[in-house]
Formats: sequence, C-alpha cells, structure tokens
Amino acid sequence: MSAPDNRFSDSERRGLYRAIRERRDVRSQFLPDPIPPEILVRLLQAAHHAPSVGFMQPWDFLVIDSLKVRQAVRDIFEQENQKAAENYSGEQAVLYRHLKLEGIMESPINLCVTCDRSRGGPHVLGRNTILETDIFSVCLAVQNLWLAARAEGIGVGWVSILHQGQLAATLKLPAEVHPVAYLCLGYVSAFLSRPELEVKGWRSRLPLHDLVHGNVWGQPLENALLDAVLGGQEVLKTGCLEQEKEEEP
Amino acid sequence: MSAPDNRFSDSERRGLYRAIRERRDVRSQFLPDPIPPEILVRLLQAAHHAPSVGFMQPWDFLVIDSLKVRQAVRDIFEQENQKAAENYSGEQAVLYRHLKLEGIMESPINLCVTCDRSRGGPHVLGRNTILETDIFSVCLAVQNLWLAARAEGIGVGWVSILHQGQLAATLKLPAEVHPVAYLCLGYVSAFLSRPELEVKGWRSRLPLHDLVHGNVWGQPLENALLDAVLGGQEVLKTGCLEQEKEEEP
Repeated sequence: MSAPDNRFSDSERRGLYRAIRERRDVRSQFLPDPIPPEILVRLLQAAHHAPSVGFMQPWDFLVIDSLKVRQAVRDIFEQENQKAAENYSGEQAVLYRHLKLEGIMESPINLCVTCDRSRGGPHVLGRNTILETDIFSVCLAVQNLWLAARAEGIGVGWVSILHQGQLAATLKLPAEVHPVAYLCLGYVSAFLSRPELEVKGWRSRLPLHDLVHGNVWGQPLENALLDAVLGGQEVLKTGCLEQEKEEEP
Repeated sequence: MSAPDNRFSDSERRGLYRAIRERRDVRSQFLPDPIPPEILVRLLQAAHHAPSVGFMQPWDFLVIDSLKVRQAVRDIFEQENQKAAENYSGEQAVLYRHLKLEGIMESPINLCVTCDRSRGGPHVLGRNTILETDIFSVCLAVQNLWLAARAEGIGVGWVSILHQGQLAATLKLPAEVHPVAYLCLGYVSAFLSRPELEVKGWRSRLPLHDLVHGNVWGQPLENALLDAVLGGQEVLKTGCLEQEKEEEP
C-alpha cells in the first residue's frame, strides 16, 4: 500500500478512537469545578479547526457563565419540554418525564455555537446549491469540540429542546446569526459506559450492517466488505488496535 | 480539580488533537490504492458512534465504487459547478476555475451519508422544537469519520456542489431519505499543511478572538479567558501538550 507514512501511530489512533467511543451526551453528572481558561481555549481551537464550506468559518462562540442568562435559557427549555412531554403516553410518558435532558444550571459553562449566515459574502465557494452547508459546518465544529472535551475529561451535553427565536433574543444575536448548538460543559463525576438513552431503555444502538448499502440504496455490499461490517462491531475497542499491532510484521 | 481520572493521557490527547489539526478537505492528492474493508469498517463505526438527537441514529452509508454511479454524480457536479462559476468575476473568477473542487473519479471510494428523516417515528426525543437536529446528527457522524480517516492516513473530500434532488434520484434514495454529505475517500500522496483554500489565497483563517463572546453577543470575555484566547493560537500543536507535561508536577 502506498503512503503508509500518513497513518498515525497506534497510540495516536487509540486516543482518537477512545474519544469517539467514550464521548457521551452528559446531562446528570456535572461537577461545579471551573474549567481553566487554557483548557477552554483548547476546546474552542478544536472547534475552530473544523472544516467549513468555502473556508467560511461561520461559527461564533458565546461563553455563558452568567446565572441570569442561564436561568433565562432554562426557562425556555422548561416551556418547550412541557410541550414535548405531551407527545408521549403510557409508559413512554412516564419514562420521558423521568429523563434528565439538560444540565444548564449544574454545569459551570454553557456555550452557544452560532452560524453567521452572511459570513464570507453572498457567494461562498461550495455553498451555491446547498445553502445549509454553513450550518453543517458549525455541526462539524461542535463534534471537534465534543471529542476534545472528552479527552480533557470534560462532559458536554447538547440541549436541543429550545425555541430558537427565544434563544436568539435572550442571547441578543443579530438577525443573520442563527443559534445552532446550545451546549453545557463541565467536569463530571463519571462518563457512562453507554449512552444514557440506551441505558435507560429508551432506544438501542442499531446494527451497523442494517445501515450500509452498496452503490445505491438497498443494494447489498460486495462480500469482503459485508463480512468486515458483520464482524466489525467492536473495531473501535483499544484491544482491537493492539491485536492488529501484534499481527503486523 | 476533581475527577482528573477522566482525562486522557498525553499521548492519547496528542492523537486526537493531531487528527483535528491535520485533517484536510482533500480534492487533488488521491491515490488509486484500495481501502481495505477492515479499515473502511473502522471509519463507518466511528461515524456510527456519533451523538444523535434522541439516539435516533438517522444515518445510512452508501459505499460507492461503481464507475457508472460515480460518473453520473460527476456529471451533476459539472452542471452545478458551471452555474457556480458564473457568480464570480475578474481575478476571483480565474482563481475559481483553477480550483479543483472534487475527486469523485480519482478517489477509489465515494460515500454518501444520508439522513432518514422518519427514523425513530414521529416524536423523536429532543427533536420537537428544532426538526433539523436529525441532519445535525448526521454532520456529527461525518466529522467522526473524517477524523478517523485522517488517523488512518485516508483523505476525505466533501463535495457540496451537487443538486440534491438529482443526487437522490441517482442513488435511488427513498423520499424520506435526504443526502447530507457526498464524500470522496482514498489514500493520498500527502496531506497539505494548511487548508487548500488558504494556501491558494481564497480565504484566510479568522482570528479566534474575533469569534468569542461573553454571555451575550458582542460582549467582551472576562480577562483571564480573553488572555487565554489571545495567547492560544497554537494550543493544538503537539509541542504545547509536551510543554504542559513538563510543567506538571
């Protein structure tokens, strides 16, 4: 195989895969300990190094520690969550009301990541057919930050049950700036070994092999790839990388 | 500080930050070497371990190696890129026409990552106020895959200049399935040290300190965080992590 030099070392790859595997959406385990500025900047730089359509970098970051602002956002959540709870009935409704879905007041820092839809002018390279690619870029930045936070031992929870117009007004966003992600950040007592919604029985992880198609929708994969998909449920585990190392000459 | 046990080791963090720092949007450096199935599965598992709203996992993956399908997608790109080029004039138009914006035929694998907007039923937890959170989740999965690919020495390029309806028809997607990302994957001759659009003079990286606000839009940061932001342009560099290690007791 050509260009093996571009591959990371086993220990470097292990760090990345560990972050991917052990990252959690945290709502319940936040500690009040402050996040040191130099660590927070590292997370922001991680986000800022995400890819963006036309190198647009449409993101801004609002670092929110004000109790007043957080309480106002918490009120928006409460109002929307009341409405959301009405969508469920029976056992599901009981479970829904027992789930903790945000840590706005318990986490020491909230972070709103926004998208300035006017950044880079009217003709951003690569954004001519799919206008939402600016918002996609902001999501990529959020995932960089989420993984970096995990590596630093910091939990992140994305609060999606918020009325965007009310949130934008509370944060005084200009008209062209769209709030994409409202995140809670803080050190945690523990990271759960599996996603909380899986642990609590809300929904299971889907088998990867149900989600992979060959060339067009619904077509089977060629055999070698199908075998690898069927056998690869645990490939992100550290052990697998170590085993592979042993097999290499 | 509490809970230091949750923090990764220096070498693990270094691997993650290296992936974030050295990941590139690749269009020009693809090699024809095939991607082994066991490596491709690792990338797909990385994507599948992304966070998703309500644990919805709305993604599917179309692994495309058919020359016929790729040529059809290439034709859609050509048609849209002709239109896009007309948005520019003068020197910018000349530069635009010289930029290579996709590697659909040169890369050995194309991957379309889709969003099934009906997955998980009509009331997905957390998706009641912002319906696009399913598409946001797919973007988070793309970033996991993009970073894992970098660690494996595989380049990824996101082709955003595509008509989504034509792409969906070519890939025979059901009506409720939305093509979010069309990616080109392959080993590469080299990863550029900086983003190609920066190297070619299209656009520069913005200073992080222009993008960070305190509590609400346009408000300054508190001093300690502002100092850290102003001094932290290089915090993702490996050397910085090593330096920090030396400073630790």
